[in-house]
Order: sequence, then structure tokens, then C-alpha cells
Amino acid sequence: MVRIALSQMEVIPGRPDLNSAAMLTMIDEARGKQADLVVFPEMAVPGYLLGDVWEQQSFLRDCEEYGRRIVAASHGLCVMFGNVGIDWKKCGDDGRVRKYNAFFVAQDGELRGGELFPYPFRVKSLQPNYREFDDSRHFYSLRKLALDLGIQPADLLRPVAVNIGGHTVNVGCILCEDGWSDDYSFKPVTVLKNAGAELIVNISSSPFTLGKNNKRNRVFSKQAQEIGTPLIYVNNVGLQNNGKTVYTFDGFSTVYDGSGKIIAHCPPFAAAMMTVDLDLDKSGENLPSVTVPDDQGTAAIFQALRYGTEKFLGQIGLDKVVIGVSGGIDSAVAAALYADILGPDKVLLANLPSVYNSATTRNLAEELAKNLGCLYAVIPIQEAVDLTVKQLSRTEIVNTRDGKRTYLTVTPFMTENIQARDRSARVLAGLAAAFGGGFTCNANKSELTVGYATLYGDQAGFLAALADLWKHQVYAVAEYINNSVYGREIIPASVFRLVPSAELSPEQAVDEGKGDPLIYPYHDYLFRSFMEWWNKATPEDILAWYAAGELETRLGCEAGLVARLFPTAADFIADLEKWWRLYAGMAVAKRIQAPPVLAVSRRAYGFDHREAQNGPYFTVRYHNLKEMLLGAT
Amino acid sequence: MVRIALSQMEVIPGRPDLNSAAMLTMIDEARGKQADLVVFPEMAVPGYLLGDVWEQQSFLRDCEEYGRRIVAASHGLCVMFGNVGIDWKKCGDDGRVRKYNAFFVAQDGELRGGELFPYPFRVKSLQPNYREFDDSRHFYSLRKLALDLGIQPADLLRPVAVNIGGHTVNVGCILCEDGWSDDYSFKPVTVLKNAGAELIVNISSSPFTLGKNNKRNRVFSKQAQEIGTPLIYVNNVGLQNNGKTVYTFDGFSTVYDGSGKIIAHCPPFAAAMMTVDLDLDKSGENLPSVTVPDDQGTAAIFQALRYGTEKFLGQIGLDKVVIGVSGGIDSAVAAALYADILGPDKVLLANLPSVYNSATTRNLAEELAKNLGCLYAVIPIQEAVDLTVKQLSRTEIVNTRDGKRTYLTVTPFMTENIQARDRSARVLAGLAAAFGGGFTCNANKSELTVGYATLYGDQAGFLAALADLWKHQVYAVAEYINNSVYGREIIPASVFRLVPSAELSPEQAVDEGKGDPLIYPYHDYLFRSFMEWWNKATPEDILAWYAAGELETRLGCEAGLVARLFPTAADFIADLEKWWRLYAGMAVAKRIQAPPVLAVSRRAYGFDHREAQNGPYFTVRYHNLKEMLLGAT
Repeated sequence: MVRIALSQMEVIPGRPDLNSAAMLTMIDEARGKQADLVVFPEMAVPGYLLGDVWEQQSFLRDCEEYGRRIVAASHGLCVMFGNVGIDWKKCGDDGRVRKYNAFFVAQDGELRGGELFPYPFRVKSLQPNYREFDDSRHFYSLRKLALDLGIQPADLLRPVAVNIGGHTVNVGCILCEDGWSDDYSFKPVTVLKNAGAELIVNISSSPFTLGKNNKRNRVFSKQAQEIGTPLIYVNNVGLQNNGKTVYTFDGFSTVYDGSGKIIAHCPPFAAAMMTVDLDLDKSGENLPSVTVPDDQGTAAIFQALRYGTEKFLGQIGLDKVVIGVSGGIDSAVAAALYADILGPDKVLLANLPSVYNSATTRNLAEELAKNLGCLYAVIPIQEAVDLTVKQLSRTEIVNTRDGKRTYLTVTPFMTENIQARDRSARVLAGLAAAFGGGFTCNANKSELTVGYATLYGDQAGFLAALADLWKHQVYAVAEYINNSVYGREIIPASVFRLVPSAELSPEQAVDEGKGDPLIYPYHDYLFRSFMEWWNKATPEDILAWYAAGELETRLGCEAGLVARLFPTAADFIADLEKWWRLYAGMAVAKRIQAPPVLAVSRRAYGFDHREAQNGPYFTVRYHNLKEMLLGAT
Repeated sequence: MVRIALSQMEVIPGRPDLNSAAMLTMIDEARGKQADLVVFPEMAVPGYLLGDVWEQQSFLRDCEEYGRRIVAASHGLCVMFGNVGIDWKKCGDDGRVRKYNAFFVAQDGELRGGELFPYPFRVKSLQPNYREFDDSRHFYSLRKLALDLGIQPADLLRPVAVNIGGHTVNVGCILCEDGWSDDYSFKPVTVLKNAGAELIVNISSSPFTLGKNNKRNRVFSKQAQEIGTPLIYVNNVGLQNNGKTVYTFDGFSTVYDGSGKIIAHCPPFAAAMMTVDLDLDKSGENLPSVTVPDDQGTAAIFQALRYGTEKFLGQIGLDKVVIGVSGGIDSAVAAALYADILGPDKVLLANLPSVYNSATTRNLAEELAKNLGCLYAVIPIQEAVDLTVKQLSRTEIVNTRDGKRTYLTVTPFMTENIQARDRSARVLAGLAAAFGGGFTCNANKSELTVGYATLYGDQAGFLAALADLWKHQVYAVAEYINNSVYGREIIPASVFRLVPSAELSPEQAVDEGKGDPLIYPYHDYLFRSFMEWWNKATPEDILAWYAAGELETRLGCEAGLVARLFPTAADFIADLEKWWRLYAGMAVAKRIQAPPVLAVSRRAYGFDHREAQNGPYFTVRYHNLKEMLLGAT
């Protein structure tokens, strides 16, 4: 019987001092619980998403120093932890000192497992280089090491023998992606089993993605079952970011027995230490199975949003926010979210009307503020907007060569953007400074996809907490907030019924039922296919599915919707091209200057979905399909 | 004798339609010149920096289709070109269809070289994953392919036999990084030579970096000499970007003979086709050497800036710009640069004074406009700033729970930022829209490093063209503009003598010699060590060098400067910590929302230097050094 402590710690990225201090405390706690083995997450010492801080040699030396302190504290139990492993004598492909994403096994003050390996630590075999991951940018893999040595990776990947209660236990030590080998030709878990592993330990630093735990449980259960060996998965909690995109880590550390059964798991989004007693002679099948909560619904979305936003505020040291509230759904959700986190007296809601804002929405904004008990202010922008339009249209533009004077014209469309910028860059930014906080960006993913937000206007803010939610998800979260978070009507029912509108012109008058040009029940799903799908859809695919009558099924939107919205193929194509041009054109320029996005989905804007400002493109086959369809109408 | 045509084409990223059309024209041209062989750059068909467009299968199919058209056009000569190579039956590590960064050899309508390789194309062995490069995110390498096959990479890397004038010539086909193997354990050129290569062709898509061509010529000359075989290097021109960072490609395609001598090169930053007749029996040593211009000076910087800015304007379709001119050096350089590109009548210079702007700088701004012959406007901001301060400080903040009213206070520091945002987000953005163009961001690299610019204020704009230049480089470019671009005093001499100042408060009064808190002759070099060095310096390194008396030598700044600026170690440390905290703290938050940066140096902000918003960190050794130094003073 082996007692294993899963240390689901909060890892603070870039803070080996704080992380190692937390680890030392948890090692004592595990020792107090008579654990034989305590397991920490991948990169527990330095954190995982650090950008190019890996290029600072002094930081690397510091990680080594703190790592030595963990090793020194391993008396009386075995400590497994992730840290950067460094070979100061060799270089990586970039010519810098060679770094590994490494798995350290320490016992009685010594590192274990060096006898069958070139280093006193084990290294990651499979390095993810998709989504937010850049492993090969920083780390040398076991596969490259094998190539250098002229041998096969399987020759290098051997279990580590540790002494537990006088018995030798062969532990297969893997890191995160090593357990997700379906798409790789190399399968670390199988190799380790064949080499005698009696227990697989996967230390991870795996960001939360809606629905990913369900998948992980399927994949890891199957893996444990196939090799008939128990598998321990330890993931960290906390928040890490790559600048443009911010990731929550939900932990959800799990133990699978040799039959693939889940026999224990830590709570999501909470630091925890859990011990489990495994009978390795029975492949760990000595414990009953436990059920695992579903992680795909709106409750999981809200949990991630709340956790991520709270941690982000803590990380940048903000405890007060200003939120521009329009009376619409997005800002209402933002207000309820931040008020729930910070308390209503730390949240200042500001309604910033121009002549185009209806009494309807102004009243809804105030009602929301009262429901939440937040601070509230009304700051009209019309005087400043009028001043700006006057200055721009009445200022002489002097041609310095001939002395001629001309004037510029400010169109109604320009005035729409002037209003949006006036609200954010003039009022909210100033208000936030005076209030001693930051101001939020309330843009959703649908808007961000096509740049339906003004740069330096409603696209501005310190964090875009809702920018990984499609509009229909924002509504679902709003309902969840009323029903399950506050348990009463915080967001007024009328806000749900209101036509979504920016209220920047007479063409967007909500009381007349006029609003956004986006038809969310269709465009949400179209846009999702452009950017969220693993194999991204383009107008070519969309048109082919439209022509085949499969579009709604493919996109997952309501049947019959497309025919209702677009009477002819020409209408359909005009809409498709309009949004595609924006998605790949001006919206990219805007996203480059967007605030950090809190990731929830399997693909968030920013560093997760990388993009160049190259403009829209249409393939040969798209042109052919278009010609066929337009010829036929 | 082989006649080789080097096709230094402009590659338009993401436009296989346009690129392949240009290639077909160039193939005809090469045929007209009786070339035996015509060589196009790496990824000539699709472009190289495309972000995650590689995840669109329809785009991949389109690249294949256009690639087939190039192959079909290869009658009567051999055509070598870069394109994406696809294995639709296999997947990459990310589970998507497997893609290679591939080298295609076509002759008489057929692909050559498939007989010794799993594919009818060759693939890149060494994939860069540093700076702006993400090769392993998208492409499968020869090294991974060899691992899958259970063989060594050298077993796969064989020359391609092509028929030239009835003779078989064995050509070593490599791609870009394959020629930069110093830091890799695998050396493609040596392997190819040992396998019988008589000629090495390196097709590249290699972004311009100040001084890189000089290094490339050293590395490639040595390579050609070592193997005694001529080497052809073909690089594209044009502009490609990764969203946050914009790269120029200077071409500079070069031919090295078997003695390492440079015998021909294309002009930098210009599309060109050059033919060279090589006697392979003499290892190409039948031609005299040519000299290559130096690419490290201010002329090269200006050339890259001008080329990059012009191409970027073309790419996003802007032909008019608005520039806020303060009378200072940065905006003066921006004005001269854009006026040179677009013509002065397409450039509107706007001076936007508040009460803090001196007559000195206002006059200099106007003088600059007149010297350039640009359009000029003066739009005072004081009225709007006063309105903002009034609104913020006189608006009731209502506590909706108890009905209590409070007011906020606007401090002088807040008013500084209000001015900066008023200029950019209120005036320049509106002015640009009305003028029918964009407005520029004139921030330099020193400012961007520590966030000495206001978000949504002077940090805003469609492009930060000067943001990869340290302040001293901005001055050097300004001088170059006067002396070599315009040949007269465009930027007034007084601008050079002016103390750099934001003029946002009485503390920054230029006429009293007051200005920025940055001491550029020292901080430029300190900041460079933080971010531009291959192994980034941190306060630990700086303090160790300071303690050892080596700091100025290490940083490359003026001797004696540090002692003059900082009388005591405490002063030195306070300054160091202040700027480090900003660099790793608030400045990161600002850079996340910064405009695209035009890269010139070996490390630019944005996608080139990746960073997380994790806050500043100080190592154990830093704390020890600090204690030692402060104890000693």
C-alpha cells in the first residue's frame, strides 16, 4: 500500500521564491499525513507561461537554487515535482543554454533516477506547439535528445525506481502532453509500461478549457485501463498568461486505477492536498469509483470566468473597477461578475449617455446598479462629442506650400466612433484613475471576431473578461447569474428582451427595435467555424455546405434559419463576404490592440489564435462555387 | 556551365494566387534568359508568416493547386520553389493534417527527387522556434520524419538529381535555417556534401535584421568554402507580419562559390531577377568576387524603416496619414519619413497644444511642417481637457445602497494622462477618419520598454514605425534624414538641442531645461540589455557588473557615466529597481495593447519578444548583492 499526496497547488508564474515556499509547506503537510510520495505539478517551481523570461540565465539559476531546496526537504518521503532542467554545457536549437521541461524525483535529500538517464531528472517527450503552447521555443525534448544520441526515444524512457516502505516501485514519470499521445507516433505511457512501470505519474500544467476534463478523463481512463496500471494526474490551479491571452488552471487532479476507474479527484479551481492509499499489487483497484462533475455547462463557464477574473485582479493589484453600463446584456454581465468578486462598493458603474441613448436603456442601467448595490454615476458625453465634431470640422487645414486653407467633414459614421472613444478613452479611463482602479472591456467574442467595437473606445479596458464568449453564451451566463449566483433578478428581465444595440445613431434606436447588424443566432455559429474549429472553416467550406444544404447541421445553428435570413444565394454570399472581409481585415488590426482576453473556450483570441494582418483571401474553389451559385439564381 | 536565375520576388503573405502569377511571369523571363535553373524563395507560393491560417484546409488545397500550376510551367528549365508540402494521410503532432515547409524541384512538368524520399518534395530539417518564428507550431520537420521511420535524419537527406544540358547535377536542396546549423547537432550542408551535392541551393524567407546580412555572409561563405561547393541563397523581399510585429524582407540573394567568395548578389529591398553562369566543374570559381554593402549603419536602418512603412501602408490600403507633431524629435522623424513615402500633401501634421506646451515647441512643429511642405493644423486641447477634469470631479458618485453622494479628485498626474488620451483618442483618431487616413504612433523603443507613453494616448496609432529604435537611434535617423534623404535642414536644428519632454506639466517645461525622467545615454543601453540581448540581462547581472566596475563596458555606454549619474549605490539601485518594475510591470500591460511594431533590430517588441503579464522578479542573488552593496555604502 502506497500513500500518495496529490499537491494541487496554486502556481504563481515567474515566482520560484513563492512557489517553492508553498511547496516546502505542503511537503511538511504530506509528511504529517504519513504520505510515502508527494506529487507537485509540472513547472511547479518557475510556473509555465513565462514568455521569454526563459532567456534570462539569472532566472534559470534561481529556479535551480529553489529546486535544490525542495530536494533537500525530501527526507522521509519521496517528492516529485516539475521544474526547468538545465544542461549548462549544452545548447538548445536556439544557441541558448539547453533547457528541459523536467520531472524531478527526490528522496532523502537526493535526486533519483539518474542512473538510466543522461540527467538527474526526466524530461518531457511530447512538446505541444499549438494554441497557447510554445514548448519547442524554450525546451529541448526527449525526442531531440534521442536523435542527438543516435538512439530511439524508447531507449531513453525508463521508469524511475523509488523505495517506498522498503519496496522498490517503478514509477513512469511523464509530463502533461506525454499523456495526450494520440496524435504522436511516440507513445510514452506504452513505452513506460513495457519497461516495467507499476505506476504512472503525470505532472501537468494544463489550462482550463470548457469540456477538456471530460475528454481527459476519457483519454486517461482508457490509457490506465489499456496498460492495467494506475495513473496519477496532478495539475496546478491559478492563473497564467501569455500577454494577449489569460488562462485559468482548474487543477482537477485525478487518480485512475488500473481498470481505468476514477477513484479520487481534487476539487476544481481550488488549491488542495489529497491523499490516496493505493494498493499497487492490485493495480490500485482497492478503492471505489467516484463520480466527476460535468465541466461543459454554463456553471463551468461562470466558475472559470469568476476564478480567472478574480485572480487577474489580484495579479495586477486592482481592487476597484469602473464599468461603463449601457443597459445592454454584456455590461450587465460584467457588472454582476465584478460586483460578485470585489463587492458592490468597489464597483463604480457609469452610464455615459449621448443624445442617442434611450430612456429605456438609461433606466435599465440605473436599475442594474440598484439591484447590485454598486456605486453609480451618470456622465453625459454629448458636450464633449459636440466640441470634438466642432473642432474637427472648423479647424483650418493649412497647405504650407501655397497657404491654402481647407476644412474637413465629419460624417455620422465618424461621429459614432467619436462617441465610443469619448466614453472609454476620455471618460472611463479618467474615471478609473480618479476612482483608483481600472476600467473593464465588455466586448464579447462575436464583436471581437468582426471588429464590431471601436478601437480606443468600447474595445479598450484592462481585461476583456467576456471576450471568449459568443453572444448566446453571454445570455446564458446572464441567466445563470440571476438564477444561481445571486438567486434573484439582478439583471433586469427587460435587458434580455432588448434588441442588442450600440445606440450610436438613429439607425440603432432600441425602442424602434433597431440595433446591431449581427444576427447572433446565425453569426455566432458562422464565426465559431472560422476561428474555433480545430480545422478552421473558410468561405469555401461554408459555400460548399450551403450548396449541399448541410450548412446549419455543420455549424450547429437552428435548422431553417439560413433560408429565412437569406432569400437568395446572392444575399447569403454578400453577408458571408462582408463578415469574412472584416474578420480577416480590420478586425485583425483591432485585435492586435485589444486588451488581454480571458480564455474559456478551446480557442481564444490573442496568443491562442495567432494571426497576421494579411487581409481576406478567397480560394479558387470559392470563386468557382460562387460563380455556380450565382449563375443558378 | 549552368545558368542559374535567382528570383528575388516580392512574396505577398497569404496570397498564393498573386504569388504564383508572379512566379509564372518570372519563369517565362528566366526561360527568355536561357536559364537552366530558376530558384524562388522559401514559401514563395503561400508566404511565410500567416499565423494560424495554416489550420484552414481549404487554404492548403489552394496552395497545392497553385503549386501544380508552377510545376506545369517548368518545361525547358528546372524550377525550384518553396511551398507547403502536405501529407493528407498523416497528421502532425497537433492532430491536424501533416504539413512540411517544403522545397519543390520541377522540370518538364514533373516533380524531381521523389525517388530517394517519401515525398515528391524535400522538407526543412532545422526549424527555428525563436524570435518571430513558430515553425514547429505548423510544420513537421525532417528530424521528426526520421524518428518516425526509425532512421537517422542523415539517411533521409540526399541531393536531388536534375538534368542540366544533358548532365546530371546533384543539388543539395535546403531551406533557410538548414544553413544556420551552428547551434544544432545536425548539419544539413555537410550531410548533403557527403552525399554528393555539387551545388547547394538555400531557399529562404529571412526577415531583415540590422547586421544580419554581414553575419550571413560570414556563415555561408565559410560553409561554401568548407565543403568546396557553390552555394546559392535566394530570399524574398516584401513585408510580412505576425500581428504584433511587422518584418521587412530585404532579399539580398547571394551566390557564393566553392572558395566561399561572394560572386553575385541582388540589391536589397527590391524585387529582382539575376542570372549567374556557374562552372560547376570549377566549383563555381569562374567568376570574380563582388563587394557587399554594409548593412549595419543608420542608412540601413532608414532603408528598412522606409521600405517597411511604405509596404505596410500599401498592405492595409492607407495613402494618407495624420501625425501629431509636438516639436520633439520622434514626431519630427515620423513626419519626415511619411512625407518622403506618401508626398507632403498626403500628410497632415497636427499640433495639439495644452497650456503646458511652450511657444518654442509649437513654433518648431510649424517650422517642421513648412520645411516638409505638409498640411498643417493646430487643434488646442485645453477646452476638452478642462471639460473632462470638470466632469470627473463634479459628477456625483451615488452609493445606490444608502443614497450617499461623493466626488472624485483628479490629480495633476491624472491630468497628464487625460491630455495624452485627449490628443490621440479624441483628436487624432477623429482627424484621421475625417482626413481619410490613419494616425501614427511615434513612440520609440526606450519609451515602450518602460511604458513611458499613455495607453490610448501617445501609445496609440495604426503602426509604431519607430518603436524598434532606441532614442539615440532616433536622433541618428533624424540626422540622416536631414543630411542624406532631403539634403537640407528639414528637422530644425533646435529640435536636436531640445531636452526631450512630454510637456504635460510644469515639471516638464522645456524652456527651463526640464523634461523626461529617462536619461537616454544610460537607460537606452540598460534597457537594451533587458530585452535585446540573446541572453537577457536582469537586475542580478546589472548589479554584479556594477559591483565589479564592469557595467559601462558590458552595456556599451559611455565610460564614467554611471558614477556621474548615481553618486551612491543606493541611488543606482533605486533607479534600477524603478525601471525594472516598470519594464516587467505596467509596461507589459501597455505593450499588450500597443500598435504593431516595425522590426529593425535583433529583437523587437510584440511577437518577437514574448512576454507574460507576471510582474517584476528579483532573484536570490540579486537580493544578496543588493544587501552587500547597501551595507557597504
